[in-house]
Amino acid sequence: MRIAVDTLGGDHAPHEILKGVAIALREGGFSSEELVLVGPEELIKQFLKDEGITDLPTIVHTEDVIEGHEKPVVGLRTKPNSSISLCVKTVRAGNADGLIAFGNTGATVAAATMGLGMLPGIRRPGIAVTILGRGGRFVLLDAGANPTPKPEHLFQYSLMGAAMSKDLLGRENPRIGLLNIGGEAGKGSEVVRAAYETLEASALNFIGNVEGNELFDDKAEVFVADGFVGNMVLKVVEGFAEYLVHSAAKSENGSGVRDVLRGMLGAADFSEIGGATLLGVNGVVLIGHGRSHANAVLPALRAVKAAIEAGLNHHIVESLASHGGEVPSSS
Amino acid sequence: MRIAVDTLGGDHAPHEILKGVAIALREGGFSSEELVLVGPEELIKQFLKDEGITDLPTIVHTEDVIEGHEKPVVGLRTKPNSSISLCVKTVRAGNADGLIAFGNTGATVAAATMGLGMLPGIRRPGIAVTILGRGGRFVLLDAGANPTPKPEHLFQYSLMGAAMSKDLLGRENPRIGLLNIGGEAGKGSEVVRAAYETLEASALNFIGNVEGNELFDDKAEVFVADGFVGNMVLKVVEGFAEYLVHSAAKSENGSGVRDVLRGMLGAADFSEIGGATLLGVNGVVLIGHGRSHANAVLPALRAVKAAIEAGLNHHIVESLASHGGEVPSSS
Repeated sequence: MRIAVDTLGGDHAPHEILKGVAIALREGGFSSEELVLVGPEELIKQFLKDEGITDLPTIVHTEDVIEGHEKPVVGLRTKPNSSISLCVKTVRAGNADGLIAFGNTGATVAAATMGLGMLPGIRRPGIAVTILGRGGRFVLLDAGANPTPKPEHLFQYSLMGAAMSKDLLGRENPRIGLLNIGGEAGKGSEVVRAAYETLEASALNFIGNVEGNELFDDKAEVFVADGFVGNMVLKVVEGFAEYLVHSAAKSENGSGVRDVLRGMLGAADFSEIGGATLLGVNGVVLIGHGRSHANAVLPALRAVKAAIEAGLNHHIVESLASHGGEVPSSS
Repeated sequence: MRIAVDTLGGDHAPHEILKGVAIALREGGFSSEELVLVGPEELIKQFLKDEGITDLPTIVHTEDVIEGHEKPVVGLRTKPNSSISLCVKTVRAGNADGLIAFGNTGATVAAATMGLGMLPGIRRPGIAVTILGRGGRFVLLDAGANPTPKPEHLFQYSLMGAAMSKDLLGRENPRIGLLNIGGEAGKGSEVVRAAYETLEASALNFIGNVEGNELFDDKAEVFVADGFVGNMVLKVVEGFAEYLVHSAAKSENGSGVRDVLRGMLGAADFSEIGGATLLGVNGVVLIGHGRSHANAVLPALRAVKAAIEAGLNHHIVESLASHGGEVPSSS
């Protein structure tokens, strides 16, 4: 089990990422053999030595990075040795089983999709996140990889989300809900209605449409939406949580309220949960928040390790093999 | 100024609605001449007498109601004397300037659209809500009337939302943001990209794309989205707020936290803000939450009165006259 780490992507890279790597090596139970660090070799060596790390992981040297504001395709084309490209190459070459990256999300999705390819039979990658609700953590996908999916893509997201819920959150037979603007069949856009019919006809544990106000109500363990809606939902929850924490700090008894709020807000704090998982590609790819600090690295590494050791991608392929016949083959 | 009240629609109708009407008459500054009550005549008379109301408003008798689970078009066809149909007729006949209804949202939208018609030049109605953020209340629309709008509809929603922000929230030159999954131009679906271009080319105060996490950050006074996304955003905020209030109640120092939270959560509590406004139809229509209790009635009446007295619909027509030339006439 080995994980490639993009040390150059993200608002606080490379120092915060490397600080996080040092924590993972010193106290997180990770050995140097389990990591490959992609980034500026001398800087990494010096930094980790200063952090007291003597047994250094393999380093793949580069100083190129695709910045957050760059267009993914342009960045990937003009910077063949970008840190994210080299992370993907490391996985493709079999020198790592997965990667973590805190940089440009679009570039990570594009590099992983093109470089690793899709799992057999999977049409499109999807970004899956976990959010805390009344019933514990649930999976929401797609959070932005595919804004205009076909019904078949939504079917495959359901199946991948269920595998993730099982493998990473320990849910036995995860319920799958389709995010929609009404509870009854026949609601929503043409694509959503078609996805509903496919899911309803399948043997997956589909519970039907779920409205936005029911997201936190323990109605399902997996919520499926197109990448536009999923991204909007995730970001609105994040922004709302931040707004509340901010407002609470200004109220009387502010810090007490803020602390209670923070305890409830797994959603707002990616550092606790590692980040978003890119499902469907042939490798384990974790996309951390660009704003991540050092404390986000260890949870990210643990999430990737858990997915690798559980055999998440293997389970996705198995699930597709048993449910694939239920999908109309549109594209 | 006169407002028709649907006393039969809603989970707690007619008693909670009538209790709310009594409050509006006794303590809310409304006179009996300003209201028309649509519902079961004898029951209404008896109830209001028991509440100490002697000077009764005009009553339009009916016992028919379109329930929340009924399909709007079927309900409207099979129940020509439904309370919502009669409310709309009362406005169309000029016996009221606006209406409030807490029942089936789809039926209210359909009845108002067909019965009142659109404001001159407006293509589609949109549901506008207000939510509390760092910069005070902002307008979000469309919250569900039109899940698959054309770019022109989104342009008209922007213009209508700005008029509402001015007239009801006192904002001088409201900033308009387009909810999208990225900040740069060229992001999102084809419809959203086309709406961006139209808004960018217009003289409206358009500030560009706004991502979900920025919704509460005082970036704009008006946020525009298609009815699917707008509905999802509104309901996720509602559901998240309820989940937090619920969780807070179970924590240590629970009630303190809950109270602070409630103070911050205008969004979760429709009773404070009246409800959602159906913009674009030829009359003022306020759609209250189906779960509303008595305390929701007076704010709803005040919101309708404010829109009527400010001349909101007149301002929408004026704004369309000055900006209409900026819209490509697609449909």
